[in-house]
Amino acid sequence: MGLVVQKYGGSSVADAEGIKRVAKRIVDAKRNGHQVVVVVSAMGDTTDELIDLAEQVSPIPAGREFDMLLTAGERISMALLAMAIKNLGHEAQSFTGSQAGVITDSVHNKARIIDVTPGRIRTALDEGNIAIVAGFQGVSQDKKDITTLGRGGSDTTAVALAAALDAEVCEIYTDVDGVFTADPRVVKKARKIDWISFEDMLELASSGSKVLLHRCVEYARRYNIPIHVRSSFSGLRGTWVSNEPHAEQGARKVEQAIISGVAHDTSEAKITVVGVPDKPGEAAAIFRAIADNEINLDMVVQNVSAASTGLTDISFTLPKTEGRKAIDALEKTKSAIGFESLRYDDQIAKISLVGAGMKTNPGVTASFFEALSDAGVNIELISTSEIRISVVTRADDVKEAVRAVHTAFGLDSDSAEAVVYGGTGR
Amino acid sequence: MGLVVQKYGGSSVADAEGIKRVAKRIVDAKRNGHQVVVVVSAMGDTTDELIDLAEQVSPIPAGREFDMLLTAGERISMALLAMAIKNLGHEAQSFTGSQAGVITDSVHNKARIIDVTPGRIRTALDEGNIAIVAGFQGVSQDKKDITTLGRGGSDTTAVALAAALDAEVCEIYTDVDGVFTADPRVVKKARKIDWISFEDMLELASSGSKVLLHRCVEYARRYNIPIHVRSSFSGLRGTWVSNEPHAEQGARKVEQAIISGVAHDTSEAKITVVGVPDKPGEAAAIFRAIADNEINLDMVVQNVSAASTGLTDISFTLPKTEGRKAIDALEKTKSAIGFESLRYDDQIAKISLVGAGMKTNPGVTASFFEALSDAGVNIELISTSEIRISVVTRADDVKEAVRAVHTAFGLDSDSAEAVVYGGTGR
Repeated sequence: MGLVVQKYGGSSVADAEGIKRVAKRIVDAKRNGHQVVVVVSAMGDTTDELIDLAEQVSPIPAGREFDMLLTAGERISMALLAMAIKNLGHEAQSFTGSQAGVITDSVHNKARIIDVTPGRIRTALDEGNIAIVAGFQGVSQDKKDITTLGRGGSDTTAVALAAALDAEVCEIYTDVDGVFTADPRVVKKARKIDWISFEDMLELASSGSKVLLHRCVEYARRYNIPIHVRSSFSGLRGTWVSNEPHAEQGARKVEQAIISGVAHDTSEAKITVVGVPDKPGEAAAIFRAIADNEINLDMVVQNVSAASTGLTDISFTLPKTEGRKAIDALEKTKSAIGFESLRYDDQIAKISLVGAGMKTNPGVTASFFEALSDAGVNIELISTSEIRISVVTRADDVKEAVRAVHTAFGLDSDSAEAVVYGGTGR
Repeated sequence: MGLVVQKYGGSSVADAEGIKRVAKRIVDAKRNGHQVVVVVSAMGDTTDELIDLAEQVSPIPAGREFDMLLTAGERISMALLAMAIKNLGHEAQSFTGSQAGVITDSVHNKARIIDVTPGRIRTALDEGNIAIVAGFQGVSQDKKDITTLGRGGSDTTAVALAAALDAEVCEIYTDVDGVFTADPRVVKKARKIDWISFEDMLELASSGSKVLLHRCVEYARRYNIPIHVRSSFSGLRGTWVSNEPHAEQGARKVEQAIISGVAHDTSEAKITVVGVPDKPGEAAAIFRAIADNEINLDMVVQNVSAASTGLTDISFTLPKTEGRKAIDALEKTKSAIGFESLRYDDQIAKISLVGAGMKTNPGVTASFFEALSDAGVNIELISTSEIRISVVTRADDVKEAVRAVHTAFGLDSDSAEAVVYGGTGR
């Protein structure tokens, strides 16, 4: 029996009862002979309450102090969890990100882990303790200031510790049973995935699946740490994310599905730059203006220019929250670049089909478009990668589109067989 | 203009409004040309709420984890305070006890400061920042664990930092205007003291005055750091505590009062060990039993033994919270020591008269007893030091006793002159 890293989110430790329930689960793992390291988030709404307090005293987002404030949340939950475990007769010690050796860069509010030196954790484990570690936080290498890792940071803490401690598995406990073939709130017949590759999980995460964040999966892939996503409420086996499916991970490779799942995302907006002169450097100037404002783009599409005008349209999607900033940045460059106008549209949805199997299965793209067409859903933009196809549709169409694609690719839970693809390539 | 350490208690930063008010006051000190270090407690009831959560998950007082939990409180208030200051256009950085270099022993929940190495604070000040430091907490020298300093610990943090940084003054901001000649809730005519010596303040603190704790004053005396106790609400000059009254401290030495004030304390109980054999070693055995249980005694009185029986009674006072433990400890030694019985009485009060002037003013004790006698208050125990007389009375009599003594010694605020003492010594 080796070392297990378990991560519990805020909803799992929302109150004293939740903390006691989680403590029992941790003690079970210890009783089964594992060394156990637990990464915990702040209790329930704690972080939101702290943000609210910060807004009351200052509208200025003060990076260093904001991080100092937010990290109080995990300090509370981890100490309470350690107490609850001791109350069950087991030894536990809690550690801040800094004490656990989570070393980051100095970018407050969204720091990146640059090293993990878990000497104190290792010592605590060797002395028979369960180690409880604050998620979401670290300490900056140069200034020794407290930093936070940004959204979903606790998952990243867990995977990073699992890598540094050479853990058997990183268990991510959450309030759902695992990763599904589509959002179960939209697709009633969505199926829990038993096993999924890092690559497919990365694409799902990029495409709107919220169970695991891209960054955490990327870290796990780099260090080859199997992730087991499961419910802290049910105790059922969840979804394994790893390089290769092992027998105990619920699937053999031959059974690997062609398609892993359908993701959707309604958090993006679409900007179209209309009437751009079709000359070298014009597109570059547009994207330089966007990049200089640190705005991350998602899909980018340039239509063929109309020969008669020498003008083209460039469309891209980006988070709605960045929309205002992008429009402002582009307006400032309008005369320099010489485009005609900007169109902003935040009533869009992105639907993505993900699966490594599609690389070798021609016709997936055609089947995807046919399913959408049959459902009467219009396609506005298309973007593809080796293992993903994404389209942009009207936001109103998103549920129908996801259900149609889910059914068409045999992902519905009462469907035993995957559809057979024919045709002439994607 | 030199360096000032300011300390704000939980009631001063109870909500966003309080934090903003305190921020203005801090910025004023900075604008006046001072380097400013601020020590802050947890907001309002935060600590009580955290203790309540701890009790919900575990009845076991887990020292290390309990300290980790409680220190979240200051982390929140200090970060918010730093944000509020930055919002006023000044630079501020917050520091945990550990970051501020507050090094303690490893006694969780009541650690003692053994060193202060404020290198980061000094750097922050030199870079033009206001430094905000978490009160009440430190880091243990040997294990590098988070510790807390126990009740009133933030005042001690402030004085210790003032000493380490060679501050001009340590300002303790609170919700009253300063140190009074008696508790203003009991004595309406109680007068704010402009200046008081360390020694008198130590005696007042030992005798039930709650404005400053003994430990904080002791630290200030050892390093000769003047303390200015004042209101965070009124901004008025409060009470200076120092070795020598300076002109700006509102009093010249010739004006120094004979009596500094009257303190009272209803938090103690009295235990009487009845029928102790009057032989060498008997009293020692009793107090060894108490000491082995780490119970702190206050007053100790042994009556003259009755010659006919060879038995004596020994009485002492101690915190009510320790009463049960002391009785249990003594019961266990009953047969070994051979006393007759124990009496426990928690309906007592202690009234103390404090003033360095009484050393050279005969008759103070007599006047004290006369005042109590005139008020019809019976005295049960007496204990004296060079600059203090304390008596134990019935708890019911405490208010009347304090008022009578306050008036008799000319401390009432409408009384211009101190009484003249005659008689033949104390």
